[in-house]
Amino acid sequence: MKSLPFLYHGQSSDWLSLQAGKLTVTLATEKSYHFTKVLLRHEPDNEEYLVEMTLSRSSDHLNYWSAEFPLNSDRDITHYVFKLLTETGQYWLDAKGISKRTSAKEFHFKYNANHQPPSWVNQQVFYQIFPDRFCNAKPDISVKDGEYLVSGGRKPVVSKQWGEPVDSSNGNGGCEFYGGDLYGVESKLDYLQDLGVTALYLNPIFTAPSNHKYDTSNYRQIDPHLGTNQHFAELCQQLHSREMKIMLDAVFNHTSTEHLWFNLQGKHSEIGAYQSPQSPYRDYYFFDGDSSDYVGWKGIQSLPVLNFENEQVRDYIYASDDAVIKYWLKPPYQIDAWRFDVIHMLGEGEGASNNAHYVKAFRDSAKQVNPDCYVLGEHFFEATQWLQGDQEDGAMNYYGFAHPVRALLTKLDISFDPIEIGVSDFLDWQAEARAKIPWQNQLAQLNQLDSHDTARFIELVKHDPRLFKLASALLFSYVGTPCLYYGTELGMMGSHDPDNRRSMPWDEIERSEYLGWFKQLIAIRKSHPALQKGDYIPLHHDDECFIFARKYQRDLVLCAFSHSDKTIHRKVPVWRVDIQNALFKGELCGEKSRASNGYVALSLPPRGCRLLSLLD
Amino acid sequence: MKSLPFLYHGQSSDWLSLQAGKLTVTLATEKSYHFTKVLLRHEPDNEEYLVEMTLSRSSDHLNYWSAEFPLNSDRDITHYVFKLLTETGQYWLDAKGISKRTSAKEFHFKYNANHQPPSWVNQQVFYQIFPDRFCNAKPDISVKDGEYLVSGGRKPVVSKQWGEPVDSSNGNGGCEFYGGDLYGVESKLDYLQDLGVTALYLNPIFTAPSNHKYDTSNYRQIDPHLGTNQHFAELCQQLHSREMKIMLDAVFNHTSTEHLWFNLQGKHSEIGAYQSPQSPYRDYYFFDGDSSDYVGWKGIQSLPVLNFENEQVRDYIYASDDAVIKYWLKPPYQIDAWRFDVIHMLGEGEGASNNAHYVKAFRDSAKQVNPDCYVLGEHFFEATQWLQGDQEDGAMNYYGFAHPVRALLTKLDISFDPIEIGVSDFLDWQAEARAKIPWQNQLAQLNQLDSHDTARFIELVKHDPRLFKLASALLFSYVGTPCLYYGTELGMMGSHDPDNRRSMPWDEIERSEYLGWFKQLIAIRKSHPALQKGDYIPLHHDDECFIFARKYQRDLVLCAFSHSDKTIHRKVPVWRVDIQNALFKGELCGEKSRASNGYVALSLPPRGCRLLSLLD
Repeated sequence: MKSLPFLYHGQSSDWLSLQAGKLTVTLATEKSYHFTKVLLRHEPDNEEYLVEMTLSRSSDHLNYWSAEFPLNSDRDITHYVFKLLTETGQYWLDAKGISKRTSAKEFHFKYNANHQPPSWVNQQVFYQIFPDRFCNAKPDISVKDGEYLVSGGRKPVVSKQWGEPVDSSNGNGGCEFYGGDLYGVESKLDYLQDLGVTALYLNPIFTAPSNHKYDTSNYRQIDPHLGTNQHFAELCQQLHSREMKIMLDAVFNHTSTEHLWFNLQGKHSEIGAYQSPQSPYRDYYFFDGDSSDYVGWKGIQSLPVLNFENEQVRDYIYASDDAVIKYWLKPPYQIDAWRFDVIHMLGEGEGASNNAHYVKAFRDSAKQVNPDCYVLGEHFFEATQWLQGDQEDGAMNYYGFAHPVRALLTKLDISFDPIEIGVSDFLDWQAEARAKIPWQNQLAQLNQLDSHDTARFIELVKHDPRLFKLASALLFSYVGTPCLYYGTELGMMGSHDPDNRRSMPWDEIERSEYLGWFKQLIAIRKSHPALQKGDYIPLHHDDECFIFARKYQRDLVLCAFSHSDKTIHRKVPVWRVDIQNALFKGELCGEKSRASNGYVALSLPPRGCRLLSLLD
Repeated sequence: MKSLPFLYHGQSSDWLSLQAGKLTVTLATEKSYHFTKVLLRHEPDNEEYLVEMTLSRSSDHLNYWSAEFPLNSDRDITHYVFKLLTETGQYWLDAKGISKRTSAKEFHFKYNANHQPPSWVNQQVFYQIFPDRFCNAKPDISVKDGEYLVSGGRKPVVSKQWGEPVDSSNGNGGCEFYGGDLYGVESKLDYLQDLGVTALYLNPIFTAPSNHKYDTSNYRQIDPHLGTNQHFAELCQQLHSREMKIMLDAVFNHTSTEHLWFNLQGKHSEIGAYQSPQSPYRDYYFFDGDSSDYVGWKGIQSLPVLNFENEQVRDYIYASDDAVIKYWLKPPYQIDAWRFDVIHMLGEGEGASNNAHYVKAFRDSAKQVNPDCYVLGEHFFEATQWLQGDQEDGAMNYYGFAHPVRALLTKLDISFDPIEIGVSDFLDWQAEARAKIPWQNQLAQLNQLDSHDTARFIELVKHDPRLFKLASALLFSYVGTPCLYYGTELGMMGSHDPDNRRSMPWDEIERSEYLGWFKQLIAIRKSHPALQKGDYIPLHHDDECFIFARKYQRDLVLCAFSHSDKTIHRKVPVWRVDIQNALFKGELCGEKSRASNGYVALSLPPRGCRLLSLLD
């Protein structure tokens, strides 16, 4: 059978517009294929309707077709796909690609007219900071050795010297403190801006016993070892005056046992849930009758799970006027974004019952105060169901970015198990992850190579640092919003938690071999709207490489990645992005390349990459 | 890279059991592959949990692994997949197949412990009757020429002679009457039982102007031209005494304009919605203010859409004690099943808002009266979202059976557009459709080659009747419950609606070349539990053929289908169903075949098929 024709529909404003409740969409088809009919299929009220598309214009290699159809009136999302007929068969184009038969519903193009992420998100370069390990600018508030007990009162805290190795032995991950604080963050804002960072994502900073602070004991207070509420307000104002954004990490699935509601150690004056079945907070958690047995997150007793069936919990966290979600979005803080930890596990009772209801409620609560608040969910695995628009704006994109990149380049999955996939498996995985969610949510996914929850990417490829560069170039050119985990720009090593949380090696800045590379990547990203919000157009792939374009209006970047040990040469069909003859410049290396008759010849060094933009 | 290992998990009781809230599952793996770890992955509270599986036994070619894990407590469905590690990579098995990376959520194995279809469904052979065209046993109740007007009072009814060609000219489809009635159905019960049919699916029989009766004017009355309520009760009793089942077709999305609620022609004594904005029935429909403009189904004015936002509509159709859904399930009728017409379009307002709520409510209403009622939904396209267990038991399986079979064998899609797919596209399509719904619902899908809404299959392959036999053999061996559209067993021709509704050619029975063939297929189906509820195990496919096994306990049927013009020969790996050496008999042709060392050599005639079962 014949190879498939090139068919393309993007979902940026280049290809789609909404007016008076109607969508107008454009489809490009390879000109050398003759179609007897070109149809748009949509599903008002779950029923198939076919709209014949009209040929609106032609270029050297492409025909452009358009059609107009109404948004669905019975739901937020409008689904559509394309059906093209030939004399002997048919082709379908959906958000995942081209096939010879009707598209599966999950891959239909999706447009959510009622819920879209804030448009500022995809313009950002995020930087994730684990506060205790980033910078200590106020040693007098640092945790002192043995100052208190963590892990539900079982372990004394340990104070460590900056640069000292992390103790990776079992169970010590949460009790070692290096003294990083928010004054330290403030002191490095010039550094971060010079790097090109525009938005901070801070791991939890509310009062909590552990160093990671995923065990909140007070949702309304900055941990005194990190700073004060007043200082945090000043930090937020400083960030905003620099036109930077800030995202906080909220852990609402469970609390610390030190939270006054729970009060394990009896330190608080009020009678906590642990002290007595008569405690006014007893039903905030799940106790087994009148016993002292309770449900901890994944069985961890230091993290008692909150019960959202309880109206007081709902009021406190999201529903009341001064709920926690709203509190930090209001002056004097006005944070710009929330990251909700293990959001998929939260719900009524001890588990995730009615989870979607609560995620929507969190979203609504945040958007009430600031409709432009970015709502990010943490999911280690597929997050499709939370990313249809009405729950989260974006997710920690492990499923669609970090996992496949790790699999292809490090041959390890997230559990350190071996995995062996080829380029086409990799592209299929990414395409599947993208295709299942609306385009605007694809752009608002938070892409990372690594985080406080994974081994550092560079650690896994230290035998071949070219792979680190390859992966980071992909991070800044792929669909979604890039986020650097602190220290990545310095090539900081680290295996899995807690070794991935080493103290930032400030003394290595001068001799870092990667800092310049990341500055360059960030600058490229920021200078190209195509990389921020442009469509993703597959140009070529084979076992050794993959090449795609990002395109937005007149801005075009070709992104080419080699998975080969040798230098390879490819003729790239830039006619797919309507380029006939043109001159490209290499954004990374400066070398020029000329396209003629719809193709550009590219050389890719071993495990290398190239980013090419159009020269005017 | 190496080819994929054979991995298999079925979801019949051979592979899965539930005890005290825990599922025990079995996985078979190809013995020549060494796995360093075999894991079951499930998702309680949306979080990944991995359970290491233990090797429970081995056969000549297969290792069997098992694991036990709890049902999800926060939702009806428990999802799970398998992850297998080797020294260098990993394999995943989900309900669609084997891959080298993590499974997409939609393909996870699904077990819905709270909602399962009735177990009697998959044991049936259904027979769909279009009553006006099946048999006229009481001519005195037949519609008389010009007796009344149809199509909202625009066309006089026409009385036709049995056997006379259907008038396919535009718009006459609904007004021609051949006089078939329920007395005729009754008179043919011996014929149907002799054919092997066990369940009837009647197109609508409630009072309605058109011949197809999808325009109900009285939900509680058998159309007087078909019979009486009392006679229908007797028919139901007769069917039940023969251990046969009966399914009625309910059209609740819209009514006829002749329904007394609407009363277009003012025939009823009550003031209908059409007569006056003050009518008590005005809000049963969607009128544009006080005007006489109203919403018709797909714009068809003779089919005004019902408004389920109206409590009276809800009460009448499903909610009250004597609601229509319940009425026919109770004595003296006690029908066994409901087919809900265009169920996906129904909802609040004029469209499908809150559709899932209403489909669940229909289900609940039916199951309240008879927990063993079969709830079937009509969907012309993908029905995954209605088939997760809590809405429908099964759907008219156009998406997963009729469409792909038609595409492969007739090279036409359901819109008569050309389509060209190969065997692997075909198998992928069927696998996708199966994999997205729980196994028990797969078995309760109603598979048809054609219906009153499609051209007859044989019409499309009259150039090559071998394809008709091939497709019908697949109908009776594939996963799902087979249903014959009346006349199919006689090879009755017919293009699309209304030509597909010709009068049954009773005088052709003696010389029918297909009747014996269908009796044989039905007998094979009924004698093999494996074909009714056995797992589907892929054995082999290539561009020219596909071969699968159905297996349930000790019953095994090999099903082989050729898509080639020539006789082809294949060595079938029956070791995949744990056969080493055995003798098979051909169910269709009687020829014996011997398996040795895990393979059986098969010859398949051009466009032919073979069904082989184990000889004891």
